[in-house]
Amino acid sequence: MFEAAEVGHKIRKAEYETLVPQLRVDLVNAQYDLRQADFPVIIVIAGNDRAGRNDILRKLHEVMDARFMQTNALGPPTEEELERPRFWRYWRRLPPRGRIGIFLGAWVGALIRERFDSTLNPMQVRQQIDHIRRFEEHLVNDGALLLKFWLHLPKQELKKRLKQARKHPERGWQVDTEDWEIYSRYDKVLPIAEQVVRETSTGEAPWHVVESTDPHYRNLHITRTILESLTRRLTQPQAVVSPSGNGQVVNTITEDDPTILDRVDLSKKLPRAEYRAQLRTYQAQLNRLTRQAREVGLASVLVFEGWDAAGKGGVIRRLITAMDPVNFQIVPIAAPTEEEKAHHYLWRFWRHLPRAGRVLIFDRSWYGRILVERIEGFASEPEWRRAYSEINAFEEQLSEHGVLLMKFWLHIDADEQMRRFQARLNTPYKKYKMTEEDYRNREKWRDYELALHEMVQRTSTEYAPWHLVAANNKPWARVEVLKLHCRQLKRRLG
Amino acid sequence: MFEAAEVGHKIRKAEYETLVPQLRVDLVNAQYDLRQADFPVIIVIAGNDRAGRNDILRKLHEVMDARFMQTNALGPPTEEELERPRFWRYWRRLPPRGRIGIFLGAWVGALIRERFDSTLNPMQVRQQIDHIRRFEEHLVNDGALLLKFWLHLPKQELKKRLKQARKHPERGWQVDTEDWEIYSRYDKVLPIAEQVVRETSTGEAPWHVVESTDPHYRNLHITRTILESLTRRLTQPQAVVSPSGNGQVVNTITEDDPTILDRVDLSKKLPRAEYRAQLRTYQAQLNRLTRQAREVGLASVLVFEGWDAAGKGGVIRRLITAMDPVNFQIVPIAAPTEEEKAHHYLWRFWRHLPRAGRVLIFDRSWYGRILVERIEGFASEPEWRRAYSEINAFEEQLSEHGVLLMKFWLHIDADEQMRRFQARLNTPYKKYKMTEEDYRNREKWRDYELALHEMVQRTSTEYAPWHLVAANNKPWARVEVLKLHCRQLKRRLG
Repeated sequence: MFEAAEVGHKIRKAEYETLVPQLRVDLVNAQYDLRQADFPVIIVIAGNDRAGRNDILRKLHEVMDARFMQTNALGPPTEEELERPRFWRYWRRLPPRGRIGIFLGAWVGALIRERFDSTLNPMQVRQQIDHIRRFEEHLVNDGALLLKFWLHLPKQELKKRLKQARKHPERGWQVDTEDWEIYSRYDKVLPIAEQVVRETSTGEAPWHVVESTDPHYRNLHITRTILESLTRRLTQPQAVVSPSGNGQVVNTITEDDPTILDRVDLSKKLPRAEYRAQLRTYQAQLNRLTRQAREVGLASVLVFEGWDAAGKGGVIRRLITAMDPVNFQIVPIAAPTEEEKAHHYLWRFWRHLPRAGRVLIFDRSWYGRILVERIEGFASEPEWRRAYSEINAFEEQLSEHGVLLMKFWLHIDADEQMRRFQARLNTPYKKYKMTEEDYRNREKWRDYELALHEMVQRTSTEYAPWHLVAANNKPWARVEVLKLHCRQLKRRLG
Repeated sequence: MFEAAEVGHKIRKAEYETLVPQLRVDLVNAQYDLRQADFPVIIVIAGNDRAGRNDILRKLHEVMDARFMQTNALGPPTEEELERPRFWRYWRRLPPRGRIGIFLGAWVGALIRERFDSTLNPMQVRQQIDHIRRFEEHLVNDGALLLKFWLHLPKQELKKRLKQARKHPERGWQVDTEDWEIYSRYDKVLPIAEQVVRETSTGEAPWHVVESTDPHYRNLHITRTILESLTRRLTQPQAVVSPSGNGQVVNTITEDDPTILDRVDLSKKLPRAEYRAQLRTYQAQLNRLTRQAREVGLASVLVFEGWDAAGKGGVIRRLITAMDPVNFQIVPIAAPTEEEKAHHYLWRFWRHLPRAGRVLIFDRSWYGRILVERIEGFASEPEWRRAYSEINAFEEQLSEHGVLLMKFWLHIDADEQMRRFQARLNTPYKKYKMTEEDYRNREKWRDYELALHEMVQRTSTEYAPWHLVAANNKPWARVEVLKLHCRQLKRRLG
């Protein structure tokens, strides 16, 4: 497929130099407009022309304002990165809306390298290609302008350059031992690169394969493509993206049907004495298990969702009581910060992912997208509809990395909730927990039930099932969560 | 000094239990008010009672809202942390205004451990104590409510606990092999701990040494202290802090005196041909040197400041042209984000510090505090006055860690600036760089000269001198910066 980039595209220096000044004016102006826009620009520059990659990067620094542009040229992953799922290192570097982020090599370069080194087998390569496609799809759906350039240098041309560099060592510092490696591996890497480029070239994020032999052609072509795409996007806002794949599924139940929540047996109870005994037993067990998990590097992510006043705080307190503070972290999810709002909504969850062996507790989570944000209209319909597959992709990566993901819905009924609301009003230190909103939410009880039913239906997976925990009786719920976490830890620790 | 915490403080369980409910009400309410306040709360819990530390932590989770509280119990530093100055791991975890951050062991615990292991000699301990004092002073000056609790457990009491844990293994999970270690090292650690606690107990950040034998006494004492301090701080805003130490120094020159800038020879020039030749030479040199630096792990931090239109962008472009994109990062400093504003002003510079072997370029920097923020009144007088010592402490830590810190002031005169402003108006893609503000700044030229004089006087140190670069002639300035960076790299690489 790269033959099309070996036809000898050229641009004369004189022509190039007459074109560049205007291009520069237009690009800087477009970049200036971008700062007020509500989408980020993500530029991927990959390919086998290492020197060309650096050269176009310099050009971009010349024709644009470096202050609103961030370059990410990543070496091998650090220890902190290796302890998280593969895409963590990319998520944490995504540019916010209004900015440009350039990735050299990026996720594709890493994949090709690992396939070449045989770190990944063909099956794993397919899986990673699938992750890349979905990752890019989610970014584009979120509004990102994603531009991917593959610089192709024919083998003969690379050889010529290497020879010249040998002849003129004073100018040859731009040629690296890495280039010699690229040359020696050329024929073996080519088919791998072709596969990856072909299969990650999608409708919403196609590759621009650029012949890299002539620097003027290459630089002009890339700069122009960036300018044109950016200008188009600034003048014609992106069409609303319809949800992809399983986004077509709609609620399979009607207003009056029972939901999956009706199957939860809310009469479950634990008498005081038994509660104390079991609490002690499971806390001791959890303490031991979390220490073992720490030693072998097994991380847990616990997600807590539930009705208002379902007792999330109390459950979490019983969990952490059993753990060493070095081993856990609680992340409460409230309204996003300005910085978080400037990114894909999953960005703020990615950034918190735990290191190996730790327990991370999310007090509310990414499920807000398809619960409160859906019901209150904070997310548009296309946004929450595509969230199911975004969430599944995210959780799949967690689980693939070996993270133990546990999701709990603490379930109470409306009467129990009202009893607790009233009790709160009589408990001075809990009063501030009550707002008008809590009462308003009660009116939407049925909407929530339907949304919850769909949530379980679509995001309860083999690797990350939903646990619907009966919580009308607090002791029962607390012990149940402890027990479930212990059981899964035991299973995973063998 | 810990004898005072061996007198047998006790509180009866019954008394404790009557006091706690009200405490809880008050604490939750105070914490609620804190959310609207403009300061963070930093709680340090250290000492030799490991189980007690965990116990009080649980209590704090019970009596406060865990959602606005972050616990930091740090193990050994990660690879990414080891590549940065010691305090990086603490800076990156500081709570924003309105929130509570709890540090277990914290910077003091690490220091005691390293002294015990003989990783640090007595001289180095003194130095680290000095860093701690200044770190805490800067946090407090910035408004943080810093509360430090040292839990002291007498040796006999620790022994008793360990024995009991052996007798009742079913409850003994809260006792750790670590506790046995603490016991065996008790007598050797005690004098080290005493020194560190004594010397880091300052007027603005005293240690509360708490007898930890009786959990009710310990928990009540700490919880009450937190409540009282927080309430006091919420009702009586902090008095304006007068600058400490060298903050007393004032400008030693008067309005008409020449400043240090007058010594810069602005007639320096480089003819075109020579410029091209030198540029090529030094870029090749810099490329080689930055690769070597990467290999041995020598990081550089380059700071660029200068008059508007002094040519910072052009200099930076010539630098990065010579480097491999994997090796450098540019951080442009504009207005701080919401998240950055919620922290000490140095926080956003700390968070960007480079990994070992990398080059980090700051396009404007922390010097904004004592230049534009001082002159425009964005920082209050006490704020910018104490910034000199804050900056020196920051840079000292960078240099102590082995980072090569280079600071450049690009100097032009007012006439040259006006020529460039006018040229910009005639260059379409530079037009947007011009604002009214640029002209207004010209009127403050003399104010800036005086501020710059003081800046050089007070922050040009042996380990991080200011380089005042003549920049009326752009080629000269570009080559000069390249040359200076090369020279320092060569010196450091030996």
